[in-house]
Amino acid sequence: MPSVLPLSAALLSLLTAAPKTPAPAAVTGPSPQVAERLIGAALTEGHAYARLAELTDGIGPRLSGSEGEKAAVAWAKRSFEADGVKVWLEPVKVPRWVRGTESGRVPGTERYREHRLALMALGGSVGTPAEGLTAEVIEVRSLEEVAALGEKVKGKVVLFNHSMSVAADYGKAAALRTRGASVAAKAGAVGMLVRSLATASLRSPHTGAMRYDEDGPRIPAAAVSVEDAELLHRLLAGGPVKVELKLGCQTLPDADSFNVVAEVPGREKPREVVLLGAHLDSWDVGTGAHDDGAGVVMVMEAARLIGKLKPAPRRTVRVVLFANEENGLKGGRAYAEAHAGELANHVAALEMDAGGFKPLGVALRAGPGGAELVAPWLKPLEALGAGSIVQGDAGGADISPLIPARVPFVGVKVDSSRYFDVHHSEADTLDKVDAKELAQATAAVAWVSYVLAEVPGVLPRPEAPLPAEAPKAPSAAPVGAPKPSAP
Amino acid sequence: MPSVLPLSAALLSLLTAAPKTPAPAAVTGPSPQVAERLIGAALTEGHAYARLAELTDGIGPRLSGSEGEKAAVAWAKRSFEADGVKVWLEPVKVPRWVRGTESGRVPGTERYREHRLALMALGGSVGTPAEGLTAEVIEVRSLEEVAALGEKVKGKVVLFNHSMSVAADYGKAAALRTRGASVAAKAGAVGMLVRSLATASLRSPHTGAMRYDEDGPRIPAAAVSVEDAELLHRLLAGGPVKVELKLGCQTLPDADSFNVVAEVPGREKPREVVLLGAHLDSWDVGTGAHDDGAGVVMVMEAARLIGKLKPAPRRTVRVVLFANEENGLKGGRAYAEAHAGELANHVAALEMDAGGFKPLGVALRAGPGGAELVAPWLKPLEALGAGSIVQGDAGGADISPLIPARVPFVGVKVDSSRYFDVHHSEADTLDKVDAKELAQATAAVAWVSYVLAEVPGVLPRPEAPLPAEAPKAPSAAPVGAPKPSAP
Repeated sequence: MPSVLPLSAALLSLLTAAPKTPAPAAVTGPSPQVAERLIGAALTEGHAYARLAELTDGIGPRLSGSEGEKAAVAWAKRSFEADGVKVWLEPVKVPRWVRGTESGRVPGTERYREHRLALMALGGSVGTPAEGLTAEVIEVRSLEEVAALGEKVKGKVVLFNHSMSVAADYGKAAALRTRGASVAAKAGAVGMLVRSLATASLRSPHTGAMRYDEDGPRIPAAAVSVEDAELLHRLLAGGPVKVELKLGCQTLPDADSFNVVAEVPGREKPREVVLLGAHLDSWDVGTGAHDDGAGVVMVMEAARLIGKLKPAPRRTVRVVLFANEENGLKGGRAYAEAHAGELANHVAALEMDAGGFKPLGVALRAGPGGAELVAPWLKPLEALGAGSIVQGDAGGADISPLIPARVPFVGVKVDSSRYFDVHHSEADTLDKVDAKELAQATAAVAWVSYVLAEVPGVLPRPEAPLPAEAPKAPSAAPVGAPKPSAP
Repeated sequence: MPSVLPLSAALLSLLTAAPKTPAPAAVTGPSPQVAERLIGAALTEGHAYARLAELTDGIGPRLSGSEGEKAAVAWAKRSFEADGVKVWLEPVKVPRWVRGTESGRVPGTERYREHRLALMALGGSVGTPAEGLTAEVIEVRSLEEVAALGEKVKGKVVLFNHSMSVAADYGKAAALRTRGASVAAKAGAVGMLVRSLATASLRSPHTGAMRYDEDGPRIPAAAVSVEDAELLHRLLAGGPVKVELKLGCQTLPDADSFNVVAEVPGREKPREVVLLGAHLDSWDVGTGAHDDGAGVVMVMEAARLIGKLKPAPRRTVRVVLFANEENGLKGGRAYAEAHAGELANHVAALEMDAGGFKPLGVALRAGPGGAELVAPWLKPLEALGAGSIVQGDAGGADISPLIPARVPFVGVKVDSSRYFDVHHSEADTLDKVDAKELAQATAAVAWVSYVLAEVPGVLPRPEAPLPAEAPKAPSAAPVGAPKPSAP
């Protein structure tokens, strides 16, 4: 199929361009009629939300290596086929971490009676012995503070009690969650707790990825609810406090999974690819409605709607539903590796992974002149409040391995201010997604994708990345790297 | 002690009144200097909040019959003694219901994969068999709908999926939680689920009391999170849905507990009692910070501050920290019974049980002329926004057994609009109580209590209650009756 379709598209392009003589097809741009069709369909058909219900209510949680993930892959393939969009699977080996049963408590003392802790092991953590792990807590605010405490950390459970209160704080706090256990273990700690990275809490723990240094000791790591972090802080003000942790989590052998890849071949430059990404995996809690079910259905819907256009856009629109964003980024890396030879022809990559919220505008990571290429075509999004180029970097964890190839990134920014109320928690469920906002964001994604595939020129490629931005070796890569936050 | 102190107070009253000859002490009223002292202390000393930390962080959950409840009784007695306030314990037999382990799930089908349910057994529920109970769900909105469904209810788990969205809806929804299991069982249901009575949810189940008809079948009953009620609703739109419930709860033999009673004897009319009530018990989840730790510390603080006044107010201010409000109301009933002979001298009863929120004003349930007696003295609360008589009934579950004795009720209304975000859930913890708002409400309670104890006249007693308002026989009494909601 891949060899046949581009040919037909090229032929079609020749045929449609035939009547006009001197003016090349390249001078026409995205059409207002297409704007009506794409935006009208996204706003009125409710197709993205219905798909999100299938994925969240029908499939549910879909952590890498789980049965849920397998079911999600099959569902995605089936859905693209139903939409008449060409689809295939590309193999990815993914980690398989399982949670098991878990609990925590603050044993009672003379000063206070026992408290139960609302906690969740972090993804990738080792478990505790079956009888649990009991140790004194030592509270810090930063990774640096651990080193400064020296000997005091030895034999303790380190509590990283940061001050995240708004979505914009996520990036900084995420470093504590990801790196905290190794930093604490290196200083002699026996366990690690992190205050949940949350902007709202009803005693709700939020899980997330962590990783161990290859050469360092591995200690159990869990997120406690904001309330429990504050409780520990208050109890510590009165003297020593012990916690007991029982984490049944473990890492099983890697599992076979897939990136689900689908595309609408371009009519004129089929080898030029506009990549639309989202991740199909989720954590094992909640049903991954905002993270990243919403992104998945937005890019699927963009492909479905663009796939119905006659003629097809100039360039190929390719959707990648990445495997294993949450706890390994194996899907993003596998795509970059498998498609290394065609990354020079990836003219843009757009990842949706900040929730199914109302769109705010378009962000770019491109060379000089990028904004001038895109901005004139955003007028159809003005009535949705998304008709401008907005500040803030474009990107996403799954497309970050494309940075060395200098692929231009485009982002449809959404209002993620409430994303971290539910992110990585049991509360990330369908009811949290507003069908209207999801439809609006879907319309923006569909239109921007079409613009990128149809606009006469292509985005200038960004400068070569600084060394620090290049993806690191797999063992040290930014697993569960911070998501782009709302501007 | 009780026989000695009133005498001393009466003597003191005679002594202080001695110099003045014709003007009787009765013409003087609450003093502005006392307003300064009470309100100033409540707003600046932070004593109520510190006490609330002791009760919530130090003692924690305190369900009737539990070790936590015993510890709370001892703490309250000790605290009154430390405050120099006379205190004693009055025995109450309380039910002892224990939760055990519990879980629920929606087994997977062709249409959807398995979902876990976030649920909590309702207090008083029987357990399921150890292997669980599996049955189809049938969804209703009201008790009446169960009867209308007839045979269709047989063998099913009835889901009461009401529409509570604001605090004012609580009363209506609470009837479903309290009565739903018996109504469903009578129609042949084998289990009962109720959508949590909550105004916010992050997959957070909210427990609460239920009761069985004496002569009816007893089926297991639990609250599911709002999210899970909505999930079941969506799944039911596509066909039959089964749930599996495993509830390990059971009712053990009644336990010995106590109402904690404390008082500041009146200087002139020590037999006239202004009763300040709150309940010391809580549910077994969360730490009962708003429900009703806040009420407890407010009335304790009122007694502490009034107890330091020289001279004491004209009448006795008595605090009752009731046992077992949540799942039996045995404390409220025991008080009414033990003090039946002096209820005619209870000139007012004020119960704080709607959370530790900012005060909004004063509500009354009294005979004609009651507002005229109290309103002139509320000026000192104006700067706190609580200086007026407000609409809405005064009352409270624990003082409801005083209705037949026509005791006038006074309420310091607080802004309970966010009370049901955390009420009866794991999230009812100290961090949810704003120290400023708690101090403001405490100031209002202290001042209003003093006014009632000092004002020359007494509130006219309300009309005799309508028969429907009289407390019913114990077996049919409104266990866990709706709390007064915010005006």
